[in-house]
Amino acid sequence: MSRESLFQNILSKKSFLSVGLDTDINRIPKHLLDEEDPLFEFNKQIIDKTSDLAIAYKPNLAFYEALGPKGLESFKKTVEYIPEDIMIIADAKRGDIGNTSKLYARAFFEYYDVDALTIAPYMGSDSIKPFLEYNDRWIIILGLTSNIGSNDYQHFTSEQGIKLYEEVLTTCKLYGTPDNTMFVVGATQAEHLQAIRKILPEHFYLVPGVGAQGGSLEAVVKHGINDKLGLIVNSSRGIIYASDNKDFGDAAREKALALQQEMSHLMTSYLS
Amino acid sequence: MSRESLFQNILSKKSFLSVGLDTDINRIPKHLLDEEDPLFEFNKQIIDKTSDLAIAYKPNLAFYEALGPKGLESFKKTVEYIPEDIMIIADAKRGDIGNTSKLYARAFFEYYDVDALTIAPYMGSDSIKPFLEYNDRWIIILGLTSNIGSNDYQHFTSEQGIKLYEEVLTTCKLYGTPDNTMFVVGATQAEHLQAIRKILPEHFYLVPGVGAQGGSLEAVVKHGINDKLGLIVNSSRGIIYASDNKDFGDAAREKALALQQEMSHLMTSYLS
Repeated sequence: MSRESLFQNILSKKSFLSVGLDTDINRIPKHLLDEEDPLFEFNKQIIDKTSDLAIAYKPNLAFYEALGPKGLESFKKTVEYIPEDIMIIADAKRGDIGNTSKLYARAFFEYYDVDALTIAPYMGSDSIKPFLEYNDRWIIILGLTSNIGSNDYQHFTSEQGIKLYEEVLTTCKLYGTPDNTMFVVGATQAEHLQAIRKILPEHFYLVPGVGAQGGSLEAVVKHGINDKLGLIVNSSRGIIYASDNKDFGDAAREKALALQQEMSHLMTSYLS
Repeated sequence: MSRESLFQNILSKKSFLSVGLDTDINRIPKHLLDEEDPLFEFNKQIIDKTSDLAIAYKPNLAFYEALGPKGLESFKKTVEYIPEDIMIIADAKRGDIGNTSKLYARAFFEYYDVDALTIAPYMGSDSIKPFLEYNDRWIIILGLTSNIGSNDYQHFTSEQGIKLYEEVLTTCKLYGTPDNTMFVVGATQAEHLQAIRKILPEHFYLVPGVGAQGGSLEAVVKHGINDKLGLIVNSSRGIIYASDNKDFGDAAREKALALQQEMSHLMTSYLS
């Protein structure tokens, strides 16, 4: 999916919502456990109820891997079920030496055939570049994440006063272009978004941490928006676990709709 | 497996060799492609021919994931086939926010039931600690890796002259103990090993990069050994792809044996 198509989807849906499919076998409604593939059955109903509101789905691989190969079957079926025009982000945070990153790229961009993959940058350039060898696919590099532990190394500061995450953003943006590279910037990091926009004016950011993790949507938009919107805001637990009964799909839709309406309103106010 | 058992294995086998099961469907001997599970068939023969020489096997998950759920079945079968007294290191370089790292831990320490898992530290403490909640399992945190890209961020230097990888070693060692935590230190980084031993005198290091990546075994031992040996040296491509014919098992054994003999010799010289 091109950046322009993504932007057009955002305009037509008045939404920059990614629904995080963090589908935990221990948290989904109990009646689904009788299904042949509970994870997929859960995702299917969430997708059916939210696909007009979401411009992306983001399954986090940990939830699927925890069930072994069977969980990966559920992931594959989920990817195949998501409508063609909605971006699929595999949140897998992969990264390895060159020849091995190439294999991860093969896994996600060929076998599972997703649009985008999150990447952990600790191992540097040769761990990242192999993922850029695919046309029409996106890498989403961890920049400044939403969790408490982001303080441990991402704010490590050089003699010149540069923080590690700034170094990551500044150097990684040179490997690709705004048409194939995004960065993760947590919603809990809104106070840094303005400075990050100066480093990366054109790129899209994937913004987790609204909802369960406590980030404010308006602060993210105010400080992070650009003229192609430039933000994909993800909510996982806040949407998909809104109810643990048979009405979970409708409850998820309600939460997604509330976010989409807030997004629509913010787009009117802030999108130039 | 306890640190003492690992050390006893090293003494009795006169080896600190890990064989990397980087089993690439495009590189294994062609006759194996007729088998029902080519990856497992390859691994089985490698294990049969090297299990008396190796104290660990290290499958890198990328090679298995590239084939989808079927590849993970091969990984699972491989883990089950490896003799009980040999450490199994899942080289997966995982790491995510707390609730998600917990799921990766469940995947590798419960479902796949390996002894050790490699961890990428970029996301900080809450991405690492959930893996330490299992008794008798090991986390192996990326410290200073063997690849070219290790220069990009791992050497990022603070105002106080501390490098990022030193910060990672110094802080991460406090999360666990030398009995459940190891660090990756590339064989190509031998000049830094002495300084690293000062930060981490007791810990085991997983040392990749001997062989295909060009690191010297003697330099690693000279600068990195401690009184419980403290080193697991991995070779992948240099052993498993020694031949691409039907004799690949014997050829792999020959390469592994040469390394084990060199290790035995170095243990006599350097182990106090």
